Amino acid sequence: MGVPSGKARIEKAALLGYPGVPFVGPRRTDRETRTMQMTPQVRKILSWYESDNPGTKANLARILMHGKLAGTGRLVILPVDQGFEHGPARSFAVNAPAYDPHYHFQLAIDAGLSAYASVLGMMEAGADTFAGQIPTILKVNSSNSLASAKDQAVTASVGDALRLGCSAIGFTIYPGSDDAFAMMEEIRELAEEAKSVGLAVVIWSYPRGGTLSKEGETAMDICAYAAHMAALLGAHIIKVKPPTSFLEQPEAKKVYEKEKIDISTLSARIAHVMQSCFAGRRLVVFSGGAAKDLDGIVGEAREIYKGGGTGLIIGRNSFQRKREEALKMLEQIVGIFGGRG
Amino acid sequence: MGVPSGKARIEKAALLGYPGVPFVGPRRTDRETRTMQMTPQVRKILSWYESDNPGTKANLARILMHGKLAGTGRLVILPVDQGFEHGPARSFAVNAPAYDPHYHFQLAIDAGLSAYASVLGMMEAGADTFAGQIPTILKVNSSNSLASAKDQAVTASVGDALRLGCSAIGFTIYPGSDDAFAMMEEIRELAEEAKSVGLAVVIWSYPRGGTLSKEGETAMDICAYAAHMAALLGAHIIKVKPPTSFLEQPEAKKVYEKEKIDISTLSARIAHVMQSCFAGRRLVVFSGGAAKDLDGIVGEAREIYKGGGTGLIIGRNSFQRKREEALKMLEQIVGIFGGRG
Amino acid sequence: MGVPSGKARIEKAALLGYPGVPFVGPRRTDRETRTMQMTPQVRKILSWYESDNPGTKANLARILMHGKLAGTGRLVILPVDQGFEHGPARSFAVNAPAYDPHYHFQLAIDAGLSAYASVLGMMEAGADTFAGQIPTILKVNSSNSLASAKDQAVTASVGDALRLGCSAIGFTIYPGSDDAFAMMEEIRELAEEAKSVGLAVVIWSYPRGGTLSKEGETAMDICAYAAHMAALLGAHIIKVKPPTSFLEQPEAKKVYEKEKIDISTLSARIAHVMQSCFAGRRLVVFSGGAAKDLDGIVGEAREIYKGGGTGLIIGRNSFQRKREEALKMLEQIVGIFGGRG
Amino acid sequence: MGVPSGKARIEKAALLGYPGVPFVGPRRTDRETRTMQMTPQVRKILSWYESDNPGTKANLARILMHGKLAGTGRLVILPVDQGFEHGPARSFAVNAPAYDPHYHFQLAIDAGLSAYASVLGMMEAGADTFAGQIPTILKVNSSNSLASAKDQAVTASVGDALRLGCSAIGFTIYPGSDDAFAMMEEIRELAEEAKSVGLAVVIWSYPRGGTLSKEGETAMDICAYAAHMAALLGAHIIKVKPPTSFLEQPEAKKVYEKEKIDISTLSARIAHVMQSCFAGRRLVVFSGGAAKDLDGIVGEAREIYKGGGTGLIIGRNSFQRKREEALKMLEQIVGIFGGRG
Amino acid sequence: MGVPSGKARIEKAALLGYPGVPFVGPRRTDRETRTMQMTPQVRKILSWYESDNPGTKANLARILMHGKLAGTGRLVILPVDQGFEHGPARSFAVNAPAYDPHYHFQLAIDAGLSAYASVLGMMEAGADTFAGQIPTILKVNSSNSLASAKDQAVTASVGDALRLGCSAIGFTIYPGSDDAFAMMEEIRELAEEAKSVGLAVVIWSYPRGGTLSKEGETAMDICAYAAHMAALLGAHIIKVKPPTSFLEQPEAKKVYEKEKIDISTLSARIAHVMQSCFAGRRLVVFSGGAAKDLDGIVGEAREIYKGGGTGLIIGRNSFQRKREEALKMLEQIVGIFGGRG
Repeated sequence: MGVPSGKARIEKAALLGYPGVPFVGPRRTDRETRTMQMTPQVRKILSWYESDNPGTKANLARILMHGKLAGTGRLVILPVDQGFEHGPARSFAVNAPAYDPHYHFQLAIDAGLSAYASVLGMMEAGADTFAGQIPTILKVNSSNSLASAKDQAVTASVGDALRLGCSAIGFTIYPGSDDAFAMMEEIRELAEEAKSVGLAVVIWSYPRGGTLSKEGETAMDICAYAAHMAALLGAHIIKVKPPTSFLEQPEAKKVYEKEKIDISTLSARIAHVMQSCFAGRRLVVFSGGAAKDLDGIVGEAREIYKGGGTGLIIGRNSFQRKREEALKMLEQIVGIFGGRG
Repeated sequence: MGVPSGKARIEKAALLGYPGVPFVGPRRTDRETRTMQMTPQVRKILSWYESDNPGTKANLARILMHGKLAGTGRLVILPVDQGFEHGPARSFAVNAPAYDPHYHFQLAIDAGLSAYASVLGMMEAGADTFAGQIPTILKVNSSNSLASAKDQAVTASVGDALRLGCSAIGFTIYPGSDDAFAMMEEIRELAEEAKSVGLAVVIWSYPRGGTLSKEGETAMDICAYAAHMAALLGAHIIKVKPPTSFLEQPEAKKVYEKEKIDISTLSARIAHVMQSCFAGRRLVVFSGGAAKDLDGIVGEAREIYKGGGTGLIIGRNSFQRKREEALKMLEQIVGIFGGRG
Repeated sequence: MGVPSGKARIEKAALLGYPGVPFVGPRRTDRETRTMQMTPQVRKILSWYESDNPGTKANLARILMHGKLAGTGRLVILPVDQGFEHGPARSFAVNAPAYDPHYHFQLAIDAGLSAYASVLGMMEAGADTFAGQIPTILKVNSSNSLASAKDQAVTASVGDALRLGCSAIGFTIYPGSDDAFAMMEEIRELAEEAKSVGLAVVIWSYPRGGTLSKEGETAMDICAYAAHMAALLGAHIIKVKPPTSFLEQPEAKKVYEKEKIDISTLSARIAHVMQSCFAGRRLVVFSGGAAKDLDGIVGEAREIYKGGGTGLIIGRNSFQRKREEALKMLEQIVGIFGGRG
Repeated sequence: MGVPSGKARIEKAALLGYPGVPFVGPRRTDRETRTMQMTPQVRKILSWYESDNPGTKANLARILMHGKLAGTGRLVILPVDQGFEHGPARSFAVNAPAYDPHYHFQLAIDAGLSAYASVLGMMEAGADTFAGQIPTILKVNSSNSLASAKDQAVTASVGDALRLGCSAIGFTIYPGSDDAFAMMEEIRELAEEAKSVGLAVVIWSYPRGGTLSKEGETAMDICAYAAHMAALLGAHIIKVKPPTSFLEQPEAKKVYEKEKIDISTLSARIAHVMQSCFAGRRLVVFSGGAAKDLDGIVGEAREIYKGGGTGLIIGRNSFQRKREEALKMLEQIVGIFGGRG
Repeated sequence: MGVPSGKARIEKAALLGYPGVPFVGPRRTDRETRTMQMTPQVRKILSWYESDNPGTKANLARILMHGKLAGTGRLVILPVDQGFEHGPARSFAVNAPAYDPHYHFQLAIDAGLSAYASVLGMMEAGADTFAGQIPTILKVNSSNSLASAKDQAVTASVGDALRLGCSAIGFTIYPGSDDAFAMMEEIRELAEEAKSVGLAVVIWSYPRGGTLSKEGETAMDICAYAAHMAALLGAHIIKVKPPTSFLEQPEAKKVYEKEKIDISTLSARIAHVMQSCFAGRRLVVFSGGAAKDLDGIVGEAREIYKGGGTGLIIGRNSFQRKREEALKMLEQIVGIFGGRG
């Protein structure tokens, strides 16, 4: 008998959901090119990564041209590595739908964020469903609160990032810790490989361990130093915590005082961190840190924006709120970095 | 002297174009998420590629979610491999700005096309300037009109595609030619490698050589067969020429007649090609072929659309027109595949 | 608020289709372990493959313990490589649903067959949907009717077979052809690799080319010789055409006559082929060949069964019938090899 | 005993040529930085190679910033592969000192040329003596007049180029020959490797063989096509022969006539070749070809300069003249490309 | 319309800045060969590295033939690894433009220095802009003041050095420290790889840790020993601190006294270090150390020159001065090593 040919076949097939027949759906009405043109801001940012191949630049461009902040040169990223760091209950019990990996992909997409960062298992659990819907960053090392060493295990590879369609790898270093050198050597090797296959590199630089005081971990001098080291290691995007006005190292303190470096306000401190990353030639996102109230977060975001910080990487404060609250909060933050806050 | 700190510094730096200071440009006004949500059409298409990893699906999604046809499941692609195939004068003299590789990237972007396909040198000459602005397909083998063998040289690698930020590799096979088996073995190896690192695979399937008659190269049975073989070789996107109603192989002819397969109109023939590619489970784009007049092209595009063809891959007919004419023509074609034609 | 915990939560979630909650379906009522115990027949067959590693044996066991013939030591396999060999219209137009790769997986499953064999693209198009539902054999070389050489292109790899979850690779040799040695060397290399990673190897041995007469391609002496060479090349399962009583080679003819080898009936000839494959220590399946009527097929199957043949590998005669007819025919054939025919 | 210490020791050592004591030679009088600043011309040229890493750009810069033409964007290169191509007597007997590999290094240095290109053995025989004195190009494939195939043997590697301190590899393709595809595949692989380690790639593109007429080898259409193919293969510097006004391919001839491409003078033809290489985005040097008289060479050089050609690669016409004559001739040629001719 | 051909086209294109058309800029007037001929001093120095391949020698020659000291056999190098060692504020706050990686490349170029040395991120941030403008040394290990171990992390590779166009790798060892053997084994492996691909090797040899006293770190015997070990490890260029007249090791002290080795003046001590490096067959540069006043630096430089030291590697004292001051200071230092000071 054969199948009915031509238009009849297609229409019938479309109705029946016959496999593989292209949709003859509602007509697309007149609208402009949907893909935004590259902005001068993003062009300039890409020019800073002058030694990178076009593949890496294209992945950086993907992150910079995605979501509500597309084209602004600012970023808001959702990271979900808390489960590894603190265990599932401490991470997700307060907002149980967040146990589901799909929840986070969808949250980042619906909030119009720039990228979603997570670890291997979480990424594998959603990478297919959300393929092409949001740039992803594969965190390739991970710590956990059962371990005592100030170190992380390498838990994913550059090959994993490619097969999962990620735009970048993410890696944590702990400057100051006994294992800091080993961690730096790991990211050196991973970064060289990632760059050679066109991936971008994000370094989480969290000072801890060694002779550092607790207060010192977020001290102005230490934070700027940690960010600078990430830049020196070849990171394209750097993640640090917002610094306090505390100064940890006596030698550094002398310089800050002598040179009258303004660290009186958070925005001034952010500006100093940006300056410490190649005079602003590198993208630096600041972590939201421990859960806090909405006013605290929004206020911090405003200061980061004012100081010229690239943006926010905000995990717990996003997914430990109910979805509607989180979306509202993220809208406000994205608004700030979009210059409307 | 030092630099002024805080806001003053940033504003001054922004004015001076100080390296690396984030733009404090015109505020972005309220607008919706700029990144289009994945459409049901694209979701369905991605589901057909069920054995592929998320990396490959993300690259397919990039192509399907880019340009004016983003989300429709249809594609219009600009291929520029004519210089290799026919030489520079025959390709570009009629529209001299097209000698410049940047011309083609810009044309594809400005016309809101789905992707730009070209060979190594052309891609290298623009991949950095246009990084992230349009999905690209690296043609990894090439023929030339000085050669007599019905074969192509492998002229680029999967590694090249990664470092140049391409979403897919493209490869031509010549079913029927003496070298057809060798070509199939080449794409087998390249496709396996490409898929393992998250790239998509496009196969140009052009029957020629061996016992094929000239008329047979675009015969209905041969075209459907060529498309089917590309699908069997694991192509994600298949490129063939629009078939005529001629039937080359006697054994096939008997079947077409006995089964009363409708090949009377171009749209019916296109529908038959789509059916031959796994009942429509694969994307098939049709080439524009030799230069023709606007009415001819537009008419053909309408038939391809009507027959359920995925879209057009249109080179010479684009860049051998003056830019303004080409943009007008492409707007019309894109309109057709967007369902407004 | 949180979600309700324990049983209540799961039940509610199940109602709501909450992602990832294990089914709380109807209790499984009394029935035995669903996985059949290994039978003495299969144990014996596995013992013949004494140099193979347990991985390869497990894959052979999967094929031998699947479907309606599970445990009998007999096999009925559905092969779909016709599209490559003869083109889509000659393969599928008579039964259009067969254009869809899913059709064939489903047919083989519903008919309770032992395995499904196909080429790369067809396998990729369904391997995910049907993962774990039926043992699969990846045909790793392919010919096509546009080619004139008596050769095949290698179109898939052992790596492809692993990532697609196949139990075996399949490969065609053309003893007698100019390219026979090259083909043997290809399968040698592929078989060594396949066995090293625990896959089984199926060789399609089709004499043709060189000095062979057309009648000789299915001659008794040639068929037995072809099957023997496949065994010597290390095949676990051998596929040949049922032999006629014609004898091609004069030297062989003398022996057949002198030794009074009984080749008077198909069952005798089948027995002789089995004997030629290491005195029956190898599995040999016979192809159905060109489409024929139901009585012809069933009669042939009975003879093959009677002659001790392992089973049937039956493509065109299956999928070129309407699905209901095909299922009925396969039920009859499976019945024969299950000893109920 | 020890060495005498302080100033006395140094002075004595200097007199004695004591190993390892730095020269305390004639004082350097006041002079400006000897290293020329990068010129705008060279900066612009480097920007065309936008997908290359800084290593490759540095090597291109070395060639462009060396010799009397440093900074002009023009090049004159000495190639010595004649011994391989035509044998030693045909190459060197007319000027016997040229049998010595050191002769050629010194000639290129003394003439203030941009680079010296030769094959493995010649390079090994002088690379140490002249290390750092002139940029070198290692020709990695070679033909010879005892061979009949229009092909070349790969006779050196990227590793050789690195250990010998070369700035680039050189490779010949013969578009049109039976082996053209194989040659293209060789340079594809070598070029990818060279670029990854920061070397530049020079392609000699000499059409010959196949259906090409003798006159066609230097025809306008063929020369532009050959240069274009080298560019498409990813060459940084292209070497072709100066084209004649002959047109070989009928289809091309039609285009040249219809589009009124000016090929009436050598300078117009050179301009057309430059245009054919990505609208002038690639460096193209023209070979001097067979030995001719001084007026012929100088006249040709003027036309090449006028047509915007990058420069000359002139072997036989250099080393088959007596050294003093050669130096005089090269001075004149360099003068022309330096804009003083 | 086409483009105007011949001269008209080129001139018009030049005016319009048409892509890729070679400059027809102001004529170069008569001047001498711009590339300096290799001097006897440099020839002699290169002869000391008799086991190195021409690639490594060419890179040494590049350093020795660059800048205002080109050809003298003396070197002044700008190293910027302070950011890693002491953090950004302590390094750059006193002269804020130095936060920008481009600042340092430009300073080294404008001061006519011999080479610029820095770590991965700093190098990547400027390697493209300054490609070919100054020889670079990639520091492939790095310490930081948050770490307590007397060790460094390997932070870059030989591959990085090649892709970034560097002439050498740099590596620090801490003779005396617990990790000294591990560091030596790291540089052994890196140096072997670097030499095989034609790169030079610079070793920073800083005694510290273990049983060494603070004063001992710069003691005469220790410094000479440290330099000697660097030479023994295969360094081409050695960096040590200028030694004091203190003697740390009792056994050594006895010898110094018995043999009446003159260590009374800095120049005598420098001469002794040079002697300790294969009787002067290795290049040794001395670090400027902590910031000091101009007279201190200039005086030290004179002593080093007088003692036959190869030169200075001067970081903090360069970039922690305002640019104009730094340039003036470097001019004076370069003058000293050029024999005019």
